[in-house]
Amino acid sequence: MINKLLVANRGEIAVRIIRACKELGVETVAVYSEADKDALHVRLADEAYCIGPTASKDSYLNFTNIMSVATLTGSDAIHPGYGFLAENADFAELCRECNVTFVGPSAEAINKMGIKDVARATMADAGVPIVPGSDGIIRDKEEAVELSNKIGYPVIIKATAGGGGKGIRVAKNETELLKGIAITQQEAATAFGNPGVYIEKYIEDFRHVEIQVLADNYGNVIHLGERDCSIQRRLQKLLEETPSPAISPSKRQEMGEAAVKAAEAVQYSGAGTVEFIFDHNTGDFYFMEMNTRIQVEHPVTEMVTGIDLIKEQIKVASGEKLRYKQEDVEFNGWSIECRINAENPEKNFMPSAGKIEMYLPPGGLGVRIDSAVYPGYTIPPFYDSMIAKVITYGSTRKEAIDRMKRALSEFVIEGVHTTIPFHLRLLNHETFVNGDFNTKFLENHDLTSKSE
Amino acid sequence: MINKLLVANRGEIAVRIIRACKELGVETVAVYSEADKDALHVRLADEAYCIGPTASKDSYLNFTNIMSVATLTGSDAIHPGYGFLAENADFAELCRECNVTFVGPSAEAINKMGIKDVARATMADAGVPIVPGSDGIIRDKEEAVELSNKIGYPVIIKATAGGGGKGIRVAKNETELLKGIAITQQEAATAFGNPGVYIEKYIEDFRHVEIQVLADNYGNVIHLGERDCSIQRRLQKLLEETPSPAISPSKRQEMGEAAVKAAEAVQYSGAGTVEFIFDHNTGDFYFMEMNTRIQVEHPVTEMVTGIDLIKEQIKVASGEKLRYKQEDVEFNGWSIECRINAENPEKNFMPSAGKIEMYLPPGGLGVRIDSAVYPGYTIPPFYDSMIAKVITYGSTRKEAIDRMKRALSEFVIEGVHTTIPFHLRLLNHETFVNGDFNTKFLENHDLTSKSE
Repeated sequence: MINKLLVANRGEIAVRIIRACKELGVETVAVYSEADKDALHVRLADEAYCIGPTASKDSYLNFTNIMSVATLTGSDAIHPGYGFLAENADFAELCRECNVTFVGPSAEAINKMGIKDVARATMADAGVPIVPGSDGIIRDKEEAVELSNKIGYPVIIKATAGGGGKGIRVAKNETELLKGIAITQQEAATAFGNPGVYIEKYIEDFRHVEIQVLADNYGNVIHLGERDCSIQRRLQKLLEETPSPAISPSKRQEMGEAAVKAAEAVQYSGAGTVEFIFDHNTGDFYFMEMNTRIQVEHPVTEMVTGIDLIKEQIKVASGEKLRYKQEDVEFNGWSIECRINAENPEKNFMPSAGKIEMYLPPGGLGVRIDSAVYPGYTIPPFYDSMIAKVITYGSTRKEAIDRMKRALSEFVIEGVHTTIPFHLRLLNHETFVNGDFNTKFLENHDLTSKSE
Repeated sequence: MINKLLVANRGEIAVRIIRACKELGVETVAVYSEADKDALHVRLADEAYCIGPTASKDSYLNFTNIMSVATLTGSDAIHPGYGFLAENADFAELCRECNVTFVGPSAEAINKMGIKDVARATMADAGVPIVPGSDGIIRDKEEAVELSNKIGYPVIIKATAGGGGKGIRVAKNETELLKGIAITQQEAATAFGNPGVYIEKYIEDFRHVEIQVLADNYGNVIHLGERDCSIQRRLQKLLEETPSPAISPSKRQEMGEAAVKAAEAVQYSGAGTVEFIFDHNTGDFYFMEMNTRIQVEHPVTEMVTGIDLIKEQIKVASGEKLRYKQEDVEFNGWSIECRINAENPEKNFMPSAGKIEMYLPPGGLGVRIDSAVYPGYTIPPFYDSMIAKVITYGSTRKEAIDRMKRALSEFVIEGVHTTIPFHLRLLNHETFVNGDFNTKFLENHDLTSKSE
């Protein structure tokens, strides 16, 4: 078993990982940037070390400093959380070279899923449904035009090194296609150091439905059902739920089996998520990408399955065999997560950093709070703006929604703007309550206070 | 359905009830004493009214003022919580006369269980096991001596109007018996206005195991399993858990059936608890008393059954039929509650009222907080000292314990002393961890910091 674990992250996910370690009896080492010396994860860990200046590239992305702390403290494992180094194959490889357990899949698995056109090809080979599109990187304009004419517009241009909603562009006709390829290639070269793009049929009216998988080092893979993340603003998820209002038990099984195949195809180990485009008009689904790490929205799955995903990550990374078989996994009730950001929803979600003067999270039955803030804490403006995840559980979707409205209405955060008023409007919106929405919902419905 | 509900209580239980109402769409009316004008339940309710001075008898026990607020606000129901008016048959009767729904059983049921010798006789008639003892009130010294010789010392003298650990006394021989009867009668006359006492065989080595029941107005009664409340200090419960480490599935069924019989015998309606003396050496159990109200420790049952007891109380009081049959009730995992009091455990649990300067409750997976305090809140010295209930859930007892240790270790309450250090010592104690303890555990193990 891992004895001492370095948490290479900050914010709520660092706190989440430290909590799991404490419950498992694993010692914890926090790392922090100069801007984060008063952060909660620093206070909760057994030890904490500054790894550099405020900028992420100098601290939370700083391989050398992080590995030095791991070595100095005798940490035998590193958990990368999400973001930062979580899907960095080079860092996973460095861990292997340094004999420190990387809590995540192998560098090879990260790479196979991280390079999008390779992932597409791997999935096709494994029999996982993919969206019609190019076989690998687009070589020239002619190929792009010919292919787009064949599969039909609109098409989507994707940077092979992108992901998480970055490096993508839609084209409705040939002019947009040619312009879009040029811009995306240029952007991708700058942002990811890799200009390669590929083309897929653009499915406009779909739900984002993803499957949580869990795998060990011995080839055992199970799935833990789906999460519906269709409530997005500019491709950023704002609310997630499980089960999905659009998924039947047989569809769950079908998508679950596809996700297991996807994980098996890259010898996956640990917790991962296979994201699908779900066409709710036809019931068809297509591989979108695999996130080779824990996700922000993992708690809703924990609520309905009773399985602690972070503990399972640590156990699997320690070399334990998976304790669950597929038939052991049961789904009970309904769970919703709202991501509460320090942003002003009335001013185009402008970030609102500053000091939290008063803070009282909601409590009671069926309410879970994952957060790293406290009364008097100053939110630094340098990192992401999420300050709390509110997760509710209910025996039905209605109860989970009613509980979320109750919880958000009693949540006290003074000193900064938050997205709580936005979430309350969303939870009261008829279309959301009916469960019949797609990823364009927030584009098509203005939920700022003036308009509703 | 009830439209508007007056909460005739304060503290965490008032907040708990308001939360359930908000989730059900029921309007809420809070009442408060002059000392409680800044209380959280006042802030969370839709309306709030002062019902009198600080002393409970002038405010939270003031029939007239509470009923006046109910009438003035058009409240069609009153929830009494626990303590105060919760087991006051006269108040339940007043509600009936005023056409206000009392969220609880009938005045008759409260009386039948509240008068302890009547309850004993009723249970004996219903076939619920009772401890060997007197048939009703002791008439004279001769009867007491003869009976005690027959059943054998030690015996316990109980005031028929007592309950909740008050008005009871143990006698090891005839001298103690005669003295004890005289003192208990005198005390009971003063405290309860009823000097009647009865005698039972004193079982020294037992666990306090209670069964949650739920009944509707149509004769349907189910049980929701047991809670083990053997961790007590001077008869006050400090930690409760479900399931009990001492109860097998067949014993649960046997005790559950006895509790259902007990409730049926008094035409019970709503949520109630049948408390048993459980002799863990023989497996025998005996009726102790029935609490005809919601209990402090109800959350642990909610965590393992998924049933929201306060919502069920309100639905049943509204005239709905019970939505669950016995076979629908499933028990999953393990749950523990620690009652966190503003007391100094190093100074004999001396109350520690005052201002809470800093407050940050624990969060994350499997942690539930029921509390009515907030940063900057001043705890009034006039009421009970409980400031928070921390409830953890785990798939096993070990996980629930480890999670509780984690949660308590991160709980920040500055400005007053709390019992958190005491609970942490308890949770680390080998005997507690083994699960092999009785109600004398804290009497026999000094858990103050100096001694451990």
